[in-house]
Order: sequence, then C-alpha cells, then structure tokens
Amino acid sequence: MTPMEIALEEARAAAARGEVPVGAVVTDAAGRVLARAGNRVEELADASAHAELLALRAAAAARGEPRLPDCTLTVTLEPCPMCAQAASFFRVRRLVFGAYDPKGGGVEHGARIFAAPSCHHVPEVVGGVRETECAALLRGFFAVRR
Amino acid sequence: MTPMEIALEEARAAAARGEVPVGAVVTDAAGRVLARAGNRVEELADASAHAELLALRAAAAARGEPRLPDCTLTVTLEPCPMCAQAASFFRVRRLVFGAYDPKGGGVEHGARIFAAPSCHHVPEVVGGVRETECAALLRGFFAVRR
Repeated sequence: MTPMEIALEEARAAAARGEVPVGAVVTDAAGRVLARAGNRVEELADASAHAELLALRAAAAARGEPRLPDCTLTVTLEPCPMCAQAASFFRVRRLVFGAYDPKGGGVEHGARIFAAPSCHHVPEVVGGVRETECAALLRGFFAVRR
Repeated sequence: MTPMEIALEEARAAAARGEVPVGAVVTDAAGRVLARAGNRVEELADASAHAELLALRAAAAARGEPRLPDCTLTVTLEPCPMCAQAASFFRVRRLVFGAYDPKGGGVEHGARIFAAPSCHHVPEVVGGVRETECAALLRGFFAVRR
C-alpha cells in the first residue's frame, strides 16, 4: 500500500468511529511506516487529536526524538494551521496531502503557515494526491450528518 | 495565587528541566485550576508538547469534554500558531498571555490565527500580563544557553 492508501484506510476507520474522516501516516526515508492515525477528537475528548498530530507524536515517541527530519507526513486533507505548524516543529521533510480545504486548511488557505517569514522550517509540500477520493470520504460523512 | 503566578511557576519548573520556560494553566469560570503544565518537548520527545497544548489536553481530559467554552487559558508567552489554533479548537473563552513573541507568536504576530476569516472561534485576548517577568525568564534561559 502507498502511504496515501494507508491514510485513506485510517480516514475510513475514523468515520466508522463517528469521527471526521481524516487519516495520516508518517513514513521514513525508506518508506517504512513509523506511525499511522485517524482523528480521535471525540473519543479522546481532545480537540487537538487530529490525525496528523497523533501520527507525528506517535512517530516521534517511537523514535524517542522530537524531530523527524527525514520523514514524510501523508494526510488525506490539507492540514489545519495547528497541524501545519506542528509539521514544521517536528521538522518533517515532506508533507503530502489529498483534498484541499478552503475553509479549514492552513497550508494553501487561511493562515498559510509555511508562508509566514517567521516559520523556521518549511517542508516540501505536495497537495491534491488522490484528491477526489479523499474529498468524497469527507463529503459522504457530512452528507449523512446533515 | 493568580493564574499568571501559577503559569510562571510552571515556566520556572520547565527551565529547571532544561525546557524552554513557558508555563500555562487552564481555569474555569469560577477560577478553579483544571490543569497546569510547562513545556515538555525534550522530555516527551514531542515537538508539540508546548505548555498550552498540554494544559488544554489535560483540562479537557479531566472533564471528558473536547471543548472548554467557559475556560481561560493563561500562558507566560504569546502562543505560537499551533497553540493559538488549538485554543480556538478547544473553544476557550479567554486567552491571557504574558510576554509578546514577535518571532514565534501566532496571535499578535506571524500567522495571526484569530484574524483569519476562517477561524471559527475567537477567544477574548489579553496580552502583556506581567510581561516583564515572563520575558525575563525566557531571556535568562537563552542567555545561559548561548
């Protein structure tokens, strides 16, 4: 499975738990999976328990290192400003995301975290990977809930 | 003790652990302390383990609720974009901070998280509380390290 396929699997699992279907995975330079996670905001009663933050924290904990300079964070949705800033703090080398998020995103939209001159570490960014599939998951989830 | 005095105590404890001296506390509408924390980035090998995020997560966990709409987050330093966005996600009513952070701050500087039209929840913000003391702690910490 590609990292985005793993992230999509995590997003589907999140939806099954009643969470917003976003999934993320952290892989190292060799493509090995260090950590994978889906949203757990409701389950953990933690508004910061976004897929990205959970995966980054787990990957760093697994290594015992607060920085992941050789790693790629792959996520089904454009990260929010919180997670984009976290990706910078964890010094990930690359950020790959699926769907764009004009309302909540903080990479290509809104706060545009990496564009701030004060942002010390800017990862390489690739957006729109399997965009249709990633976006369809979210649309399906919110359509049922409305 | 006032919330800022508690936050300062946490900041001093963080410095003693070799962490950047920032402390935070979450209090409810009655002024009761729900959680207090200092930076633990190095100790936890977690680049997101800022005082604010740790205190917000602990307060929400203590309540079993991912949102803290009646609460105040008091922190010795202007929150970074990650923590400012987290404060919005946790829906804190008020954010009180000490020193301003022109380089890393995300409230009055840089990404200015709460000013983005896409920011759903904007807390009341009070900056500059015991600013001199909060800033001196940080300056002292970095002076020794240089």
